[in-house]
Amino acid sequence: MNSFGQFFRVSIFGESHGLGVGVVVDGIPAGMPLDYDDFSSDLDRRRSGAKGTTPRKEADLPKLTNGLFNNFTTGAPLVIQFENTNTRSKDYDKLREMPRPGHADFVASKKFGGFEDFRGGGHFSARLTLGIVAAGVIAKKLIQPLTIKAELVEAGGSTNINAAIDKAVEENDSIGGIIECRVSNMTVGLGEPFFNSIESVMAHMMFSIPAVKGIEFGSGFSAARMKGSEHNDNILSFDGKTETNHAGGINGGISNGNDLVFRIAIKPTSSISKEQKTLNIKTGEIDSLKVEGRHDVCVALRAPVIVEAAAAIVLADFMLQEQRIPRVWNEIKD
Amino acid sequence: MNSFGQFFRVSIFGESHGLGVGVVVDGIPAGMPLDYDDFSSDLDRRRSGAKGTTPRKEADLPKLTNGLFNNFTTGAPLVIQFENTNTRSKDYDKLREMPRPGHADFVASKKFGGFEDFRGGGHFSARLTLGIVAAGVIAKKLIQPLTIKAELVEAGGSTNINAAIDKAVEENDSIGGIIECRVSNMTVGLGEPFFNSIESVMAHMMFSIPAVKGIEFGSGFSAARMKGSEHNDNILSFDGKTETNHAGGINGGISNGNDLVFRIAIKPTSSISKEQKTLNIKTGEIDSLKVEGRHDVCVALRAPVIVEAAAAIVLADFMLQEQRIPRVWNEIKD
Amino acid sequence: MNSFGQFFRVSIFGESHGLGVGVVVDGIPAGMPLDYDDFSSDLDRRRSGAKGTTPRKEADLPKLTNGLFNNFTTGAPLVIQFENTNTRSKDYDKLREMPRPGHADFVASKKFGGFEDFRGGGHFSARLTLGIVAAGVIAKKLIQPLTIKAELVEAGGSTNINAAIDKAVEENDSIGGIIECRVSNMTVGLGEPFFNSIESVMAHMMFSIPAVKGIEFGSGFSAARMKGSEHNDNILSFDGKTETNHAGGINGGISNGNDLVFRIAIKPTSSISKEQKTLNIKTGEIDSLKVEGRHDVCVALRAPVIVEAAAAIVLADFMLQEQRIPRVWNEIKD
Amino acid sequence: MNSFGQFFRVSIFGESHGLGVGVVVDGIPAGMPLDYDDFSSDLDRRRSGAKGTTPRKEADLPKLTNGLFNNFTTGAPLVIQFENTNTRSKDYDKLREMPRPGHADFVASKKFGGFEDFRGGGHFSARLTLGIVAAGVIAKKLIQPLTIKAELVEAGGSTNINAAIDKAVEENDSIGGIIECRVSNMTVGLGEPFFNSIESVMAHMMFSIPAVKGIEFGSGFSAARMKGSEHNDNILSFDGKTETNHAGGINGGISNGNDLVFRIAIKPTSSISKEQKTLNIKTGEIDSLKVEGRHDVCVALRAPVIVEAAAAIVLADFMLQEQRIPRVWNEIKD
Repeated sequence: MNSFGQFFRVSIFGESHGLGVGVVVDGIPAGMPLDYDDFSSDLDRRRSGAKGTTPRKEADLPKLTNGLFNNFTTGAPLVIQFENTNTRSKDYDKLREMPRPGHADFVASKKFGGFEDFRGGGHFSARLTLGIVAAGVIAKKLIQPLTIKAELVEAGGSTNINAAIDKAVEENDSIGGIIECRVSNMTVGLGEPFFNSIESVMAHMMFSIPAVKGIEFGSGFSAARMKGSEHNDNILSFDGKTETNHAGGINGGISNGNDLVFRIAIKPTSSISKEQKTLNIKTGEIDSLKVEGRHDVCVALRAPVIVEAAAAIVLADFMLQEQRIPRVWNEIKD
Repeated sequence: MNSFGQFFRVSIFGESHGLGVGVVVDGIPAGMPLDYDDFSSDLDRRRSGAKGTTPRKEADLPKLTNGLFNNFTTGAPLVIQFENTNTRSKDYDKLREMPRPGHADFVASKKFGGFEDFRGGGHFSARLTLGIVAAGVIAKKLIQPLTIKAELVEAGGSTNINAAIDKAVEENDSIGGIIECRVSNMTVGLGEPFFNSIESVMAHMMFSIPAVKGIEFGSGFSAARMKGSEHNDNILSFDGKTETNHAGGINGGISNGNDLVFRIAIKPTSSISKEQKTLNIKTGEIDSLKVEGRHDVCVALRAPVIVEAAAAIVLADFMLQEQRIPRVWNEIKD
Repeated sequence: MNSFGQFFRVSIFGESHGLGVGVVVDGIPAGMPLDYDDFSSDLDRRRSGAKGTTPRKEADLPKLTNGLFNNFTTGAPLVIQFENTNTRSKDYDKLREMPRPGHADFVASKKFGGFEDFRGGGHFSARLTLGIVAAGVIAKKLIQPLTIKAELVEAGGSTNINAAIDKAVEENDSIGGIIECRVSNMTVGLGEPFFNSIESVMAHMMFSIPAVKGIEFGSGFSAARMKGSEHNDNILSFDGKTETNHAGGINGGISNGNDLVFRIAIKPTSSISKEQKTLNIKTGEIDSLKVEGRHDVCVALRAPVIVEAAAAIVLADFMLQEQRIPRVWNEIKD
Repeated sequence: MNSFGQFFRVSIFGESHGLGVGVVVDGIPAGMPLDYDDFSSDLDRRRSGAKGTTPRKEADLPKLTNGLFNNFTTGAPLVIQFENTNTRSKDYDKLREMPRPGHADFVASKKFGGFEDFRGGGHFSARLTLGIVAAGVIAKKLIQPLTIKAELVEAGGSTNINAAIDKAVEENDSIGGIIECRVSNMTVGLGEPFFNSIESVMAHMMFSIPAVKGIEFGSGFSAARMKGSEHNDNILSFDGKTETNHAGGINGGISNGNDLVFRIAIKPTSSISKEQKTLNIKTGEIDSLKVEGRHDVCVALRAPVIVEAAAAIVLADFMLQEQRIPRVWNEIKD
């Protein structure tokens, strides 16, 4: 199923080299002002162009086809669509015989019986994250005054990100990265113990972003190496503010009012133009493969805005559930 | 909501110092043989007793009250209950004024208006994981021939786990740990791209276990420091077996037939008998607190079987969804 | 799945002749006062005893095992259990060979491969509605000031209900009935167009009650025979009150502030002691069957309180969704 | 929420006088052949044109924008969109002040704070059922060999449907009707007792169709007037075939292999050009209203194909759940 959320529900659809991609966002309170300008900043951040990103250029102009009336949300499902304009599908034909190492080619073919749209990864493409970013724009408005900031803090194992990119481009290789995300002005009481913990739902969403292979909240894996006396955050005030924030703003699955902090591990892009070995499905032999097509050297470069959007979607859902967002955004229109 | 799963649905209930805890498991195929002996081995592994675990002793005898008939599952909801027999609630009275650093006391009181059962953590207690372990016993039978093995690979930052425990006990402190989980005999094709990826659902479930603060699949955070040419797993055969397994058995959110491998970071227990500082709710002053009561020095010691159970529950749900488990377990009874 | 509801979730379990039946209610706001006395009136109304009801007598004492603390709800799942004390399972042994006409015996055996608990209908028994009535008690408190009143308006085709019962008892037969349910003090704005309409969710729930075979809202089937000019309800005031109430209080799937009114058709009990014909599974012949055991002559007699409970559960779910019920019931406890 | 189904999930979106309407269908097995021709017959049946239907003419050409590749489903979400081409929004402006009796105008404005798209009913319009009919085309293919046939058996209280329509047109009034739906070649074992009964889920779906106010299965409301000895259907053979079919093919919520039969009550269209009384929101007075715009005299005329589609969607969901439809439709493509 390609849907996420209970109260604020995001459903994505589309293919990399089909007509386009899009998203249906259901559960938006009526009366929230929204127009095209709201989307440009975040969509720009996701777009390729910088060194280390794919040469495929797409305008990524959102088309709001439903759920908006006189520049206000109506309470009906909002639909946002993006055309694909710059497709070069023939690049992918030969990959039918040679599933790319590290890519979904092999499992997709097994799971969908060979009927999957394989062009450019089809429905598996990171192009689908356009819908997540667009839904995130709406979610960010809803969760105000909470604010979210994600940034790439490491690429290819180095904090000198530009140099790491340059080196990878030179080597015809790809690199991964680590993104840190921080939510400020948090409210106390979002989330539940066990299955509906903030960590559970946030991690669920983050692993929906292609190439994510790890997540840690607060001190995370370092916490596993700390003592309780070091890790415990002393509570200092009635609003829950703590001396340190090893917990990343969450106790018992519930937000404690401090900044929500987590880090995401992004693996290196699997499509590289360096020569690799893989099974040739036709011949049964192990063959050499150089992946053609246009790819990001470091997808992590474009991922921070996706992480922000994903976090906003999760928080909007929690806040609606906790009745922190009204069912009608503005006062009654006259 | 205290439920997890679409087809194999686990609902936990209970409190640490109330009458007991339990679980309802819905969606079990009819006709699976099941009796009390099936539960003893996993429940034993979860039970305290070893050095570094809580002195609270509970027999943890499961009572199967519904959904079983002549030692076969019936297709109706299976209910498993555990009595609480060894409770010392007065230990917890004073914590009402002094929320423990690192614990859910503060957020629980804020979220539930002071009406939460605070005795021993109440509904937030790790005692609720009894229901997860019990449901996991059933799930492990269902997913055969898949097998799951989790183990504690590091405690307090050290692979010499016994020594680390000894030191923490001596220091009146607590320590965290890292658990590695491996699923063997995996099948190709479980999971979906995006919101229903194996990583998404598995991470969702793992963060439902108290004290978990991080998860990584395959090379995880190390992958973020690798090149694509290092990280990509070369495909060697038609069944999807790869030369390396940096992906942890998952591509594009879907199992690729290799072992499913992930690691979990467990933070140190927040309840320690060492002196700490926290807000006194009554006085508004920052006071000293030494947590009484009976606690684990290293909860990670008892967690591997919980991780296994949680993984089994996720896999049972995916396998039912993919029609890899029949709706009636055995042949028609005559 | 044996669960209903998104935000107020009711999960029933149990068997007619096993240890007992029960319900887990998740999503109850913390801080609602609740004790045993709250349940007695509605459980009494459901209990047998009157002429035309089964001679099986059960005390039906609820046991609240979890989710309650100092007589207030805690926000954790509330569990209510009922023991079975008066079971006579041998009555049912021979029905294995002779599936009762009109009963679930045949389909249960097909669907669950013969592993179902067949004693007294097992998990199919109307005894499971005890959990619905108990959950309804909680829901009725939550939805105040809305009030619900259901009554049997017709039995065996006659409004002289006592006479109809007498006749059926005399004839060793069973009869059905029609129940009308009315919700007063309704609020405007519950429900949505299409899949989440009040009619949709209410009907879903009502058909979960055994023996229900029809439902109509407002004028219902009569509306199909009216003209628009007759059926339309003229709006008279700003609070939505209408001159007539042919719509049963619902327009476009949404409550309009007038009384919510619907009628339920209950079929005659299938278990009758009169001789019937059915397939003998052992011999393959059509044989005669007289159903022994203890049965209601008219289940509709005991159904009004079940209908009320079911309606309350639906409305509690809608009201939580619409933020008409607070997440914490009372003021912060000191 | 505008979504329905667990495994075959239909999400509708759109507005009557906006750009268009559409549907996302998720959970379709990969490999099902599908092209534009598949849709024409059912869309034609829904289209207006006959006497008694709205003069608004729409081509209703489906545009399959996603989820299809080389005329086979891919396993990714299928998106079907319809343009609105013939809109006359100014007809609706004055209704802002005068909520139409029997219509959703009043409740929509209250619920969505006046931000709803009110043109032609906006998101409440029966035009949204285009998506249901389109999804139904897919569902009907999936559930083969089950076949569904719905027909209008009564309009305006008369079985002489043409005459009833003529009379209503003449009187500037509207009429309702009764639709009977029959599913043949049913399989035994779909559905569950209680909340997931066939009646529950089918009724849920049917009440999602605008103007539906009642449903009955088998003998339905007549059953409430029968004796058990009359109503019980004698079982005649091992495949569950019964002598009569008063149960409408369902016992204990589960299909019994006989035809599934139900009837739907459709109320008269609320928009009529006859003069009515309603509240004038601006003046607070009760005023006269004659609804302009283009409307169906008898929406029931166009509803049978919608009922069929809705039934097919429900059955596809049940059949996927029961593993009666494979996850990949055809053999592996070479």
